[in-house]
This record gives sequence, structure tokens and C-alpha cells, in this order.
Amino acid sequence: MAVPPSTYPRCLLPLFLGLFQAALLLFFALFVTYDEPSAQKDTSLVANQVYSTFPFFQDIQVMLVVGLGLLLTFLPHYGFSSLTHNFLLLNFSMQWALVLQGLLHHFHHGQIHLDLHKLLISEFAAVTVLISVGAILGRASPCQLLVMATCEIPIYLASEWVIVTCLGVLDVGGTITIHIFSCYFGLGVSKALFRATQQPLHPKETPTPSSDLMSLVGTLILWVFWPSFVAVLCQAGDAQHRAILNTLLAMSASAITTVVASSLLDRDGKLRPGHLQNGSLAGGVAIGVVADMAVPPVAALALGSLSAAVCVLGFRFLTPLLGRKLTLHDQCGIHNLHGLPGILGAAASVVAVLVASKDTSGSQTSQLSPVGGNASEMVEGQWGARGAGGQALCQAAGLAVAVGASLLAGLLTGAALRLPCLARPPERLCFDDSLYFKIQDQAESPGPDSSAEEGALALKEQV
Amino acid sequence: MAVPPSTYPRCLLPLFLGLFQAALLLFFALFVTYDEPSAQKDTSLVANQVYSTFPFFQDIQVMLVVGLGLLLTFLPHYGFSSLTHNFLLLNFSMQWALVLQGLLHHFHHGQIHLDLHKLLISEFAAVTVLISVGAILGRASPCQLLVMATCEIPIYLASEWVIVTCLGVLDVGGTITIHIFSCYFGLGVSKALFRATQQPLHPKETPTPSSDLMSLVGTLILWVFWPSFVAVLCQAGDAQHRAILNTLLAMSASAITTVVASSLLDRDGKLRPGHLQNGSLAGGVAIGVVADMAVPPVAALALGSLSAAVCVLGFRFLTPLLGRKLTLHDQCGIHNLHGLPGILGAAASVVAVLVASKDTSGSQTSQLSPVGGNASEMVEGQWGARGAGGQALCQAAGLAVAVGASLLAGLLTGAALRLPCLARPPERLCFDDSLYFKIQDQAESPGPDSSAEEGALALKEQV
Amino acid sequence: MAVPPSTYPRCLLPLFLGLFQAALLLFFALFVTYDEPSAQKDTSLVANQVYSTFPFFQDIQVMLVVGLGLLLTFLPHYGFSSLTHNFLLLNFSMQWALVLQGLLHHFHHGQIHLDLHKLLISEFAAVTVLISVGAILGRASPCQLLVMATCEIPIYLASEWVIVTCLGVLDVGGTITIHIFSCYFGLGVSKALFRATQQPLHPKETPTPSSDLMSLVGTLILWVFWPSFVAVLCQAGDAQHRAILNTLLAMSASAITTVVASSLLDRDGKLRPGHLQNGSLAGGVAIGVVADMAVPPVAALALGSLSAAVCVLGFRFLTPLLGRKLTLHDQCGIHNLHGLPGILGAAASVVAVLVASKDTSGSQTSQLSPVGGNASEMVEGQWGARGAGGQALCQAAGLAVAVGASLLAGLLTGAALRLPCLARPPERLCFDDSLYFKIQDQAESPGPDSSAEEGALALKEQV
Repeated sequence: MAVPPSTYPRCLLPLFLGLFQAALLLFFALFVTYDEPSAQKDTSLVANQVYSTFPFFQDIQVMLVVGLGLLLTFLPHYGFSSLTHNFLLLNFSMQWALVLQGLLHHFHHGQIHLDLHKLLISEFAAVTVLISVGAILGRASPCQLLVMATCEIPIYLASEWVIVTCLGVLDVGGTITIHIFSCYFGLGVSKALFRATQQPLHPKETPTPSSDLMSLVGTLILWVFWPSFVAVLCQAGDAQHRAILNTLLAMSASAITTVVASSLLDRDGKLRPGHLQNGSLAGGVAIGVVADMAVPPVAALALGSLSAAVCVLGFRFLTPLLGRKLTLHDQCGIHNLHGLPGILGAAASVVAVLVASKDTSGSQTSQLSPVGGNASEMVEGQWGARGAGGQALCQAAGLAVAVGASLLAGLLTGAALRLPCLARPPERLCFDDSLYFKIQDQAESPGPDSSAEEGALALKEQV
Repeated sequence: MAVPPSTYPRCLLPLFLGLFQAALLLFFALFVTYDEPSAQKDTSLVANQVYSTFPFFQDIQVMLVVGLGLLLTFLPHYGFSSLTHNFLLLNFSMQWALVLQGLLHHFHHGQIHLDLHKLLISEFAAVTVLISVGAILGRASPCQLLVMATCEIPIYLASEWVIVTCLGVLDVGGTITIHIFSCYFGLGVSKALFRATQQPLHPKETPTPSSDLMSLVGTLILWVFWPSFVAVLCQAGDAQHRAILNTLLAMSASAITTVVASSLLDRDGKLRPGHLQNGSLAGGVAIGVVADMAVPPVAALALGSLSAAVCVLGFRFLTPLLGRKLTLHDQCGIHNLHGLPGILGAAASVVAVLVASKDTSGSQTSQLSPVGGNASEMVEGQWGARGAGGQALCQAAGLAVAVGASLLAGLLTGAALRLPCLARPPERLCFDDSLYFKIQDQAESPGPDSSAEEGALALKEQV
Repeated sequence: MAVPPSTYPRCLLPLFLGLFQAALLLFFALFVTYDEPSAQKDTSLVANQVYSTFPFFQDIQVMLVVGLGLLLTFLPHYGFSSLTHNFLLLNFSMQWALVLQGLLHHFHHGQIHLDLHKLLISEFAAVTVLISVGAILGRASPCQLLVMATCEIPIYLASEWVIVTCLGVLDVGGTITIHIFSCYFGLGVSKALFRATQQPLHPKETPTPSSDLMSLVGTLILWVFWPSFVAVLCQAGDAQHRAILNTLLAMSASAITTVVASSLLDRDGKLRPGHLQNGSLAGGVAIGVVADMAVPPVAALALGSLSAAVCVLGFRFLTPLLGRKLTLHDQCGIHNLHGLPGILGAAASVVAVLVASKDTSGSQTSQLSPVGGNASEMVEGQWGARGAGGQALCQAAGLAVAVGASLLAGLLTGAALRLPCLARPPERLCFDDSLYFKIQDQAESPGPDSSAEEGALALKEQV
């Protein structure tokens, strides 16, 4: 099973990363500094900012590094690559987003002032890459993934600027800007990279019970910390409290509905690990865009249930269909976890804006309307002169921009990934850690990850 | 190893869960709303409440979803079921408790106002189910577990109301109300479900090194976050600080004493994984009831040590004895982890109340008694006219109520679980994920979870 | 593979631990109490202290118990021992440090007042033991490890007192006092314990893919929470904020540079799991000593990159060299993760002190210098009359003291560990859980951790 050295250009990855790191050092040396401590600034104010943001930030780091990493280890011979590439891409994309955001937004007086909030924003940008990668996981080289990240981050920043700043779309949990964008970007990349070739089922692609179990642990970690992801950028106080509660309710409903849907779809009523690993999280994707709006608790529950059902149905029917009809390859099913629930969430936000406006106009005389007063005020403050109808249109426009821009950009990026120098692994070496890692050759000393079958077969030949 | 479809009624689980979810949606639509933001309420006050509760809440979620889930994966072929059933039951029980608590306590003006604190209280109710399940883990179908949860939650709420509200028992960490209650409820269920039939040792019941290791990781996660569980409902300030310290000391003493006790009990001085997985946590169970009382640090250490010793001794002597004499089946040894240390803690609380009262009466003239002043004041405020002796009696009465009510209710619930439609799995299909999950048939492609022996045997037949 | 009972003295471990626990109880009963709640002390002040410290404390507990524990499970047949010994040593060392620190620093009026901060300081002392153990992991009995902890804690406390209190070394993240000290202590112990005998490659020493994967998960957990470790003892406000940002940047740079370095060093451009597991954390070790100083962001990035490169180079070239030339055995490569990056960090602190002083002296007239004003003021306040040159000398002297004292003490401790009663395991029983744990005999029922080869061989004999 030894890989001939020639199949993988050894210098490209370290060269690319090394140059990037050197350029980053230069950029930081020239332009980046810390917020200057000033006499006016109260120390306890800074301390409070740290205490109010840092626990959320750590939760999100756990999600992205440990939770998402483990979720991707469902490929039994690709656990190392999944964890490491996810970790590498997070760091690379975060740094790259820091540079671009610095250049775009924060370049005042020749200096970029770094703080925890800007790092957090860059993490959010990096999330898009981590999601998109799911479409081509196991069939792309790390060089391809890095080039993909290099392209995706600036496009994300531009799309986020159009959606949030220009259109004024409300999307505190990143449903439209992050989940939908990254899903269709990833699908575009996959389409352009694999073109019309149907990807055959690879023998190493099927999860084993233990790799599926690790992946489920990853899901549970993501499930637990998801409220932090949705609520971290909310206004402190009522809005953040409501965002946390809405996310908790949506995810709880998702967990139960996933079991219902998965069980109903199977002839024997058995659950599929893949459904659990993804469906349980669908509610978190959908709720992001309405989490801090004046929606009642039942809306969060309904949205969570619906998105879990849609996610499971997507795995069962849509993914095979897209594979057959469009030869669209979606390794992790990101369309089911991020695309469909995201669209549901965006639709829900249109409804929420329209309903919230009715609630408020019905009680216009009293500014302190009992239900959702603060929220609709805040929301109204944001959409200002444009009115509820206008804001609802904007939410829909944001969805359209996210889908359109990401698909187009993804297709172009995917075409670029076909460059031969990026070393796309040959089919027979896909889904295999040993292409990128110096691990025990599994034929020589079969460890727990190698199946007993291999060992037995080896013996059979000896016998 | 294929299961004939007829052995498991495919519709029951999704039907039950689907109806529950629909009813929940209806209930929420009619009655549940968020706390209205009012002008009087300071935004920074709400923000502070979020910042002071949410990190504790997340810690507890990690404990229940990841820590407890992993702890239960010690059954090598049942990891998926353990993790998923635990996760499902947590969500189901939490939602069910939310409904019942809403109806019972919070029904004002036709509306239930949801906030993070009420969700937390519902989580606590759900914990009782997760603990009780340990007695019958691997031998009960998910339908049985859901029916059990449906019965246990209202009984818990009633028992908690009697113990805390009527009797005024002090139990900040849930030692009596949660741990003792759920332990004897689970044992009652087990007794009524399995009756007098001795459960034979199932070949899939024995942990493998790797399943034991995963389980130990679960223990360590529980161990780390236990102080959050005990302290989350304490009064902010000194009481909460003391509860955290007491819990840390008790758990640290438990960890060391477990090693001592397990090593002394083995002929070769070797440690048993099961002892470590449970004994290390015994101190956390016992300390809950006295954590915020005016106990000196040495009491926390002693209680932690003692409960770990009792837990390990229970595994070695009491569990086999109960199995032989009472044909009482306790799969995870919940009596050793929750029952015995809980009783120890309840006894300690009687002593603590009596001693604290002496300390205060000895320094009645000075309200600022140097040792434990605030605490005994607070405690005294709570037990009021009844006096220390009365409060001590109440603690004992609370213990009696918890044991009695839970045993009785558990026996009745267990009898209900014998209904044939609940699909208790036949003995030969117990402890096997493949009954509930669509996973790789392990005979066809033996993965890491299947033993090499099976692979070799398969080969042998071929040879 | 059954171990004859005589090879391991069954009583020594529980006897030692039991006596320690009894002595601790006595000590606590006599001397330790909680901070008395006083009228002057505001409850909300205590509450704020809890809220500002406890989340950091929990993060550090996760790092030490779960993260470090998993990192050490790379030995495939020694996972139980790694996790359990790490857990046991943490608790033992923490309690032992609590006693010694109580005696040394906090003994006022015959009472030691326990609070969360003192527990945290004791945890930090315990970390030194957990790091040092890495040098001899798998080849030492738990008794030897406990004796090592017994010796190391007082020496650490003395060395920390000399370095921080006497010399006034600035080291908020413990780079010099913890990482360098424990590294050279561990190497000293290893040298004296194994003397000039070259340790042969043990067949159970080679990681399997799945044990390497678990270990990588441990690394990722450590990586995520490292900022909490560095920043917990910082002054709240700007200094803590800067420490968090510096650590995040350093660790991010480490992650990328590790991939670059590991890939460049391999003939086929493949990554080695060991490099990833350690190199990604090197930046966190190095940044500790300068994290809250007035260093620009680029310095954190550069330090992170450099220390990761040095760590990977150390694994590739220095460890084999030390093994051959000095017969120095370093099982986990602690010299590469803690020694070399620590020295880099110490050197960086010398430069940072000198540069910070120049920055301030250049803007002496304005106390509110735009760059790093507060920090250099604070720093200057600390080094006072001694001046920047003096402080730089002190940092260097601190490094020298840490290396010298720890090497000497380590050599003496290692000599003591050769006492025959401490039951060093014979070579053929090293790296094997079955010496200390009652787990399934792997020859009888080969679980996932046993290689299929063994199963196949067993069959071969039968055939």
C-alpha cells in the first residue's frame, strides 16, 4: 500500500503555507497593533468585555476544532486527515480573513487595531471554509483545500458586506451569510472539480461503527455549544437571552424530530448514524437568522423540527437524486445540513419580520408593547424607513445573493482546483490517511483501525 | 446476525415521539412566551444574569450530553445506543418537564414565561431519567425508556415539591432530590421489569479495553464539570464560592480514595476500570446536599473519601449480593454511584445542620461569627422557627420520602414497562446496536469494534 | 501474558496513598478553613471574583484532566494507565501543593484560608508533575510517579519562590517557572533512573492510527483552552485581553508552522502525528512569559512560528541525538515541547523587556504613550529601581535557576526512584495496561485494541 513518492508533490504544501506565514508576519509587523490602553478607558470596562465575550469565544473554538473535527472523522481511514485539515484550514482562513478584514474595514491611520472581537469575526469567516470542504472531503488534497480557502474568504467577505451592510439583512447567527453561502460555494466547487463524472462508492468511504461513534461525539459537542455560536454577536441583554433560548429550543426539537424522521424512513424502523450526526444540528442552522427577533418560543420549536425533518429527507431522497441527475457529489451532505435548513431559516425570517411589524403596528400607541417590545423596536430601528415589507424583501434578496454569488464563485474556484499542480489524489488513494501522514502501514501491523478481515486475509495468503 | 424485522415494531417509537412533539408544539403555541422586556428592567441586569448562569448551564450540558453519554459507552457493541438514547431521553425529558413545570408553577395569566432558569430546572428533572436508565441499560428498548421517562418526570416533580417546598429540605446539589430519587426509581423499575429472573452474563456485556477507555473519558468530563452542576443554583457570592470549593475537594478526595480502595480489593493490587469510572464521581454525589452549608473543608474531603470507598465496596460486595439475594439487576451500578453516596451525603447534611446550629448559638451575641457566619444565618433564615433539630429531622424525612416514593413509583413503572407492545428486546439481541441502528453488519465487514476473533472465526469456517 | 502476582507489590500504592489521604484529612481538620464572610465584603464582589476566575479554572481543568490525559494515550496498550496516572497525579500533587503552600505562605493566626485562587495556584504546581512524567511515561510504576510528585512539588515551590519573589522574574504564563522547570526535572529523573542503558524500542511503544488519533484530539483540546491557562493569572483588563490575543496568535502560527516544518522534513512530504501533537502547542509554551508584556502582535506570531519549528526540528534531530550521545530517554519528547520553546520564550522576554523600556523612555514626557503605555508602566512598576537592563538580567537569571535547580533535583529524585521497593516494571511488561489494570486479557478475547495479527496468530496455532 506504499504510495510512490512521485504521486504527491512534497514541496507544494509547505512552500505555499510557508510563504503565507512569512507574508502574514510582514503584514502584522507593518500594520497590526493592539488597542492602545488609554486613560479614558476604564479597566473594568475592558475586563467586562473580556468576561462577556471570551467564554463564548472558547465555546466556538471547541465547536470548530474538536466538534467539527470529530464530526468529520466518520471516514474510517481518514480521521487524521479530517482532523488535521480542518484544524489547518481554520487557522489559515482565520489569519487570511484577519488580513483582508484589516485591509477592508479597520485600516485607520496606517494601523489595524486587533482585539478579541476582530478575531471572532475572522473565525466566523473561517467557518465558511470548514463547511464548504465537506462537499469534497476525502477526494481533495490539502493544497486544493488551501487554494479553495484562499478564494473563499475574500468572496465571503464581499458577499457578507453586500448582504449585511448594503442590503441590511438581519442575520445574527450567520444562517444566510455563513451556512447558505458556504453550502452552495462547496457544491459549486464540487461540481466544477468532479464535473460530470459520477463518483463511485469507494471501499474506504463506508463508516465503521467506531468511526461513526467518534463522529456522533463530534455532533454532540457541536450540539451543546451551538447556542454560543448563535448568540455571541447578539446585543447583550434581552436579545442575547432570547437568542440562547431560541437556539436551545430549536436544537432540542431537532434532536427528537431527527429520530422520528430517520426511524420512519427505514423499513425496519432503525436509525441511520448519518441522520443523527446531521439532523440533530439542523435546527441550529435554521434558527440563526431569527434567533434574536421577536419570535415566540413555538416558532423556534417548529423551525427546529421542520429543519431536522428536511435534513433527514434530504439525505434520503435529495442527495441520491442530485448525485444521479446532476452528478453532484456532496460527501458530507452539507446541502442537507446547511443548505436546506438555511433556506428554511431565511424563509422564516421573512415571515418573522412581517409578523413582528404587525404586532408592533397593532400597539403603536404604547412603545412598551408587552410582547417583544424591545426586539421589534430594535429591529425597526435597523430597518428604519424601509418598513417591514422592505425588510422582508431584503431578507429574500440576501438569500438570493448568498446562493447566487456562492454558486458562481464556487464553480470558478472548483475549476481552478483542477490545476494539475494542486495534486488531486487519484481515486484509489482517496479517503486514506497514509497519503498525507506517516502512520503505521496498516498491512504490516494492523492496528484497531484496520479491519480484522485484512489481518485474516493476510493470514489466508500465508496459509 | 440480521434481525428479523418483526422483532421490533417499527412504528411505535416515531409515533410516540411524533405525537409528543406535536402536542408540545400545540402547548407552546397556546401558553408559552418569553419574558417581556420592560422599561423597568435594566438591560445590564439581564446581561449579568446571562453571564452568571450561561457558562454553568453549558458546563452541565457538556456533562449530560457528552460526559454521561461517553460514560455509558462501556458496553462495547452498544455505544451508539447508549449515546443516542441518553441524548434522546435528555431532550424528551427536558421538554416534558418544561410542560409539567409550566402547568404546575408558572401558569400566571394564561401564559408561561420561559427563561434560562426554567430551562435549567427542567434539565435537572431530566437528569433523574438519565440516571435511572443506568439500571436497565442495554436490556430495554427505546420505547420502554421513553415510557419510563414519561412516568418518572411527574413523579420527580411531585417528590421534589414535597421534599423541598413542603419539608423545606436543603439540597442545593440535588443529592436527595435527584440522585437518591433516581437511583431507587431505577432499581424499582429494574426489579419490576426483570422480576425474579437472574440476568445471565451476556457475551456482549463485557467491556473491551477501548470501550472502557471511552467510558473513562466520559468520567473525566463529568468529574471536571461537576462543580458547575452543584453550584449553579447556589446563591451568588460566598455560598456559591463555598459550594465550588467543597465540590472540588470532595471530588479530589474521591479520585485518590477510589484508587486506594480498588487496589486494596484486588488480589494483585490491580485497579478495575469500573471502580475508577464510578468511584471518582461518588464525592460529587455526596457533597451536593451540604455543598453550600457552613461545613469546614475537611468535611468535604472526608465525605469525598468515604463515599468513594463506599462506592467501590458496593461494586465489589453489594451489587453481587443484591443480584444473588434479591435478583436485583443494576447494569451500571447506579446504586453504588448514586444510592450509597447519596445516603452518606444526606446523613452528612443532618450532622452539618446540627453542628452549624451549635456554632451559631455559641456566638449568638456577635452576628459576625468568624466561622461560617453568613451561611448559618442564611440556613437559619431558611429553617426559621423549626430550629436545628427540626431541620435535621426534615433532612432525614426528605431522605425517607425520596427513597420510599421512588421505589414504589419505580416498581409500578417497571410493571408498566412489561407491556408487550413496548418491545423489550429478546435476551440474545440485548447489548447490540444493530437492533436499533443501521450500521455495518459486523459479520460482513468487521470493523475495529468487532473482535479479531470473530474475523478469525469467520475465516476458519471458510478455510 | 498473565503477570505473576509477585512482580508487583500490591500493598505499596494503596498504603502510600491511603496514608497521604489520612494525613491530609488531619492537616485540613487542624488548619484549613474557608474565607470568613464578613460584613465589609460585598457579596457581589465575591460573586464577580467567582465569575471572573471560575470559567478559566474549568478550562484549565479540562486541559489537564481530559486534554493532557488524551494526549498521553498515544501508547496503544497504555491508554488506561496514561489517563489514570495523569488524573491521580493531578489530584495528589494538587493536594500536596495545597498543604505545602498553606504552610509556606498562608499560615496566619494558625489558620489557612482556602479560596479558588489558592486551589488554582496548587493546580499550577501540579502541572509541573504532569509534564515531567512525560519523560518516563510507560516505564515507571505509579509508586515511582507518586514519589517523583512528592519530591517535585516542594522543589517547584522553592524554585518558583526564588524566581518570582526573589528575582522578580515576570512570567505570567509559567513558561520559565512551570514549563522549563518541569522539562529539565523530568529529563534529570529520566537520566538518573535509566542511567546509561539505551532504552530499546519496545514493541508496544509504537502508536497505532487510533491511539494517535485520540492523542491528536487531546492536543486539540489543549490547543483550544491554552489561552485560559496563560491569561488566568493576568491582571484583569488590558493585560488579560492582550495575553489572550497573544496566545491565540502564537498558537495559530504554531499550527501552521508545524505543518510546514513536518512536511519539509519528510522525504515524501508527509506529516508525522507526533509533530502535530506537539508542535501545535509549542507556541503556547513560548508565549507564556511575554503574553502580558507590551509586545506587538507580530512578536506573538513570530514566537509561535519559531517555537513550532524548533519543536519539530527537536523531534527530528535533537531527541535521537540525545538518545545516542547522552543515552537520555524522553518518551513524550517533553524537551521539544516544553524545553526548547520555553528557552525561546525566556529569550524573547529578555528582548521584550529591553524593547519595552526603550519605547517608554522615548516617550517619557507623555505618560499615556500610544503604544503599550499601560503595560510598560505596569512592568516598570514591577521592576522599579532595577531598570530595564536589570530586569532583563533577572529574566535570564530566572531561566538559569529554573534549568539548574530542576536538573539537579531531577537527577537526585531519579536516583531515589531506583529504590527496588518502588517496583519499576521489567522491560517486557512496560507500556502495558494489564500490569496495573484488571482488563480483559487480550489473548483470551482480543478487543479492538489488540491487533488482528494477534488474533490471526492465535488462530494459526489452533489450525
